[in-house]
Amino acid sequence: MRDDETEIRELVATWMAATKSGDIDTVLSLMTDDVVFLVPGQPPMRKADFERTARAQAGADAPRFEGSSEIQEIEVHGERAYMWTKLTVVVTPPGGAAPITRAGHTLTILRKENGKWRLARDANLLATVPSS
Amino acid sequence: MRDDETEIRELVATWMAATKSGDIDTVLSLMTDDVVFLVPGQPPMRKADFERTARAQAGADAPRFEGSSEIQEIEVHGERAYMWTKLTVVVTPPGGAAPITRAGHTLTILRKENGKWRLARDANLLATVPSS
Repeated sequence: MRDDETEIRELVATWMAATKSGDIDTVLSLMTDDVVFLVPGQPPMRKADFERTARAQAGADAPRFEGSSEIQEIEVHGERAYMWTKLTVVVTPPGGAAPITRAGHTLTILRKENGKWRLARDANLLATVPSS
Repeated sequence: MRDDETEIRELVATWMAATKSGDIDTVLSLMTDDVVFLVPGQPPMRKADFERTARAQAGADAPRFEGSSEIQEIEVHGERAYMWTKLTVVVTPPGGAAPITRAGHTLTILRKENGKWRLARDANLLATVPSS
């Protein structure tokens, strides 16, 4: 039997793989309908904003995303959990521009709905890493 | 009888007042011993780092901190809670330099220890607001 922490680790792996392959529907299925994404210097982003941005970026000339995630901590309490991860994302713009590396931490609230863990609140603290 | 959400709101008010008055011991009493502070572009900060930075800034030529916090959401589950706030902090450096305004959101995990709520994990997404 899989436990909650294992299921949350699988959610993260599925999220990273679906983001890399541009599978927007799968990414959307991993978040609650009332999800809130928080990033520095921007207003909160909701699910509809996330979908609009993702679909606008999709297509043949989409940027490529390659991420690696190191989970620092997962704590589960009933149908809620929080997770702290260290994340690095390399974004390669279309047209041969130089890749941009963003690195930092995330703090995420997850909620179990109908037996499935989903991302509910997400604080993304990634900052651009200066190219050397 | 006070409920958990009220106690958490009081914690925030106490934190803001103690920060403003430079009462470092009170601020330290409002966090767990294993607290982790996450900010963009920096390594995680622990309680000892927090205390060292706060004490180094204290004294007659300390910067002044004036903050206002709008709590967006508090959700309590047993001995854990999460909180999302919208925060503005005006930092006035010593010596007459122009104040710096930082604004944005925070996502915080709180833990109830021996009947008292404390801050346990904190993601601080504040960014400097360009002066107009």
